[in-house]
Amino acid sequence: MTDTVAHLKLTLAGAQRILAAAQARAQAMGVPQNIVVTDDGGHMLAMARMDGAKPLSVMSAFAKAKTAASARAPTGGAAADVELKLALAQDLHYTNLRGGLPIIVDGKCIGAIGVGSGTGDQDVEVAKAGLAALAGASIP
Amino acid sequence: MTDTVAHLKLTLAGAQRILAAAQARAQAMGVPQNIVVTDDGGHMLAMARMDGAKPLSVMSAFAKAKTAASARAPTGGAAADVELKLALAQDLHYTNLRGGLPIIVDGKCIGAIGVGSGTGDQDVEVAKAGLAALAGASIP
Amino acid sequence: MTDTVAHLKLTLAGAQRILAAAQARAQAMGVPQNIVVTDDGGHMLAMARMDGAKPLSVMSAFAKAKTAASARAPTGGAAADVELKLALAQDLHYTNLRGGLPIIVDGKCIGAIGVGSGTGDQDVEVAKAGLAALAGASIP
Amino acid sequence: MTDTVAHLKLTLAGAQRILAAAQARAQAMGVPQNIVVTDDGGHMLAMARMDGAKPLSVMSAFAKAKTAASARAPTGGAAADVELKLALAQDLHYTNLRGGLPIIVDGKCIGAIGVGSGTGDQDVEVAKAGLAALAGASIP
Repeated sequence: MTDTVAHLKLTLAGAQRILAAAQARAQAMGVPQNIVVTDDGGHMLAMARMDGAKPLSVMSAFAKAKTAASARAPTGGAAADVELKLALAQDLHYTNLRGGLPIIVDGKCIGAIGVGSGTGDQDVEVAKAGLAALAGASIP
Repeated sequence: MTDTVAHLKLTLAGAQRILAAAQARAQAMGVPQNIVVTDDGGHMLAMARMDGAKPLSVMSAFAKAKTAASARAPTGGAAADVELKLALAQDLHYTNLRGGLPIIVDGKCIGAIGVGSGTGDQDVEVAKAGLAALAGASIP
Repeated sequence: MTDTVAHLKLTLAGAQRILAAAQARAQAMGVPQNIVVTDDGGHMLAMARMDGAKPLSVMSAFAKAKTAASARAPTGGAAADVELKLALAQDLHYTNLRGGLPIIVDGKCIGAIGVGSGTGDQDVEVAKAGLAALAGASIP
Repeated sequence: MTDTVAHLKLTLAGAQRILAAAQARAQAMGVPQNIVVTDDGGHMLAMARMDGAKPLSVMSAFAKAKTAASARAPTGGAAADVELKLALAQDLHYTNLRGGLPIIVDGKCIGAIGVGSGTGDQDVEVAKAGLAALAGASIP
């Protein structure tokens, strides 16, 4: 075991590229969205609330990103009998709402994107469009 | 895209007119209610707890108003499989209980009314009576 | 007393213009910053954490914006004997740290910018550079 | 010792009378205020945010009322070395900011009024004007 391993870090430039692509897709869909990009610790790097998106959904979009960053997996996959218990036990930082995707490059999770204000399908579509703008990012 | 757009702001006089009409309807119905009027950011403008209304329901009436203001739509329309997740992910500001209505004038959401302490039907009836007192407000 | 009054609403385009100008100034100063733009209800519209900015300072930058939006005045002006009481009584949404400025156009407060990760002077300079990018915005 | 004692209960009509008088005084002073009236348990009965009052100060006005109702005494009298400890130990419901007064009739505390958005002196003046509207209420 080594004491440290090589990692990658998402820059603000990368986060803003993801954000802009997600925003453009939501614009094209005609669905105003809240879009949040975090680092791998779940700390916010960039966000935008589009005109007409629900203000309270900024919080759920953020929770989706934090959850996807933590799990290094898309949100929405937890079983119905544990998802609320997880949300409570993780002090409401966790959510199983769909619309959170990890940002994975070269097998390393370097952050996440969370999208909220549309339907689950719309949120996921916008999040995927964000990931697609980052060279090398895996699309789940 | 412009940097600012024309909007409307609900005054305290307007909020108190809505509150008084809602209170009068609840009085006529013989159902004591908690009535909360917020601005479009979900911040409280005016409220009344009628004699006999449940004190804890002030909180749910407030959450109904915040939710309706954020979504610019009546509360109660979320699907059963997401409503609790939304409440937790939005830090308990959100509720899908019926009784919250947005205040929409000229197509602009300028606030919301939330009513709680009766049944869902009673709460909605009182909220609508509040909206009806404001010239130009849409009744959902 | 009228029930509604004319108001203005800051769009995402306007918020992103402010954000970009503030980010450019911080870049030119060589001081990585957290920059948060909110609407007049203190709800987040746009944010960026520059590479090297302190992650925890996102929270203080946000609190600065919420405080400036609520008071329609720059943060930092409260007396020493009340500032902590205000922070606690307003559930930590309030801060008297310098670096929060209201966005005032035509005499109407339509939002706020909060900047944090530098010194107070640096934070204020970046916030002012943000405001200067919005046509008609008052610079305090 | 008897198991129960005679008490008085503030009605919504009484709370609204206090609120209206406080609002009228603030109007006459030209100082927009947040005004909150609670029962003796610190639960909100009536409130108003006047046009131009700071939205975040609704929370501190509420905390002032809760504190005055609990202590059956005006806020602001705690020593500087304990006031923040009390706020923290009482989970931010307590504040030592000036502007909270108990509503005492016939020696019985039946509620409180909290006012916030002006200076301490202005807040207290408005709170006193509210109390003066209730027959038999003690003015501290």
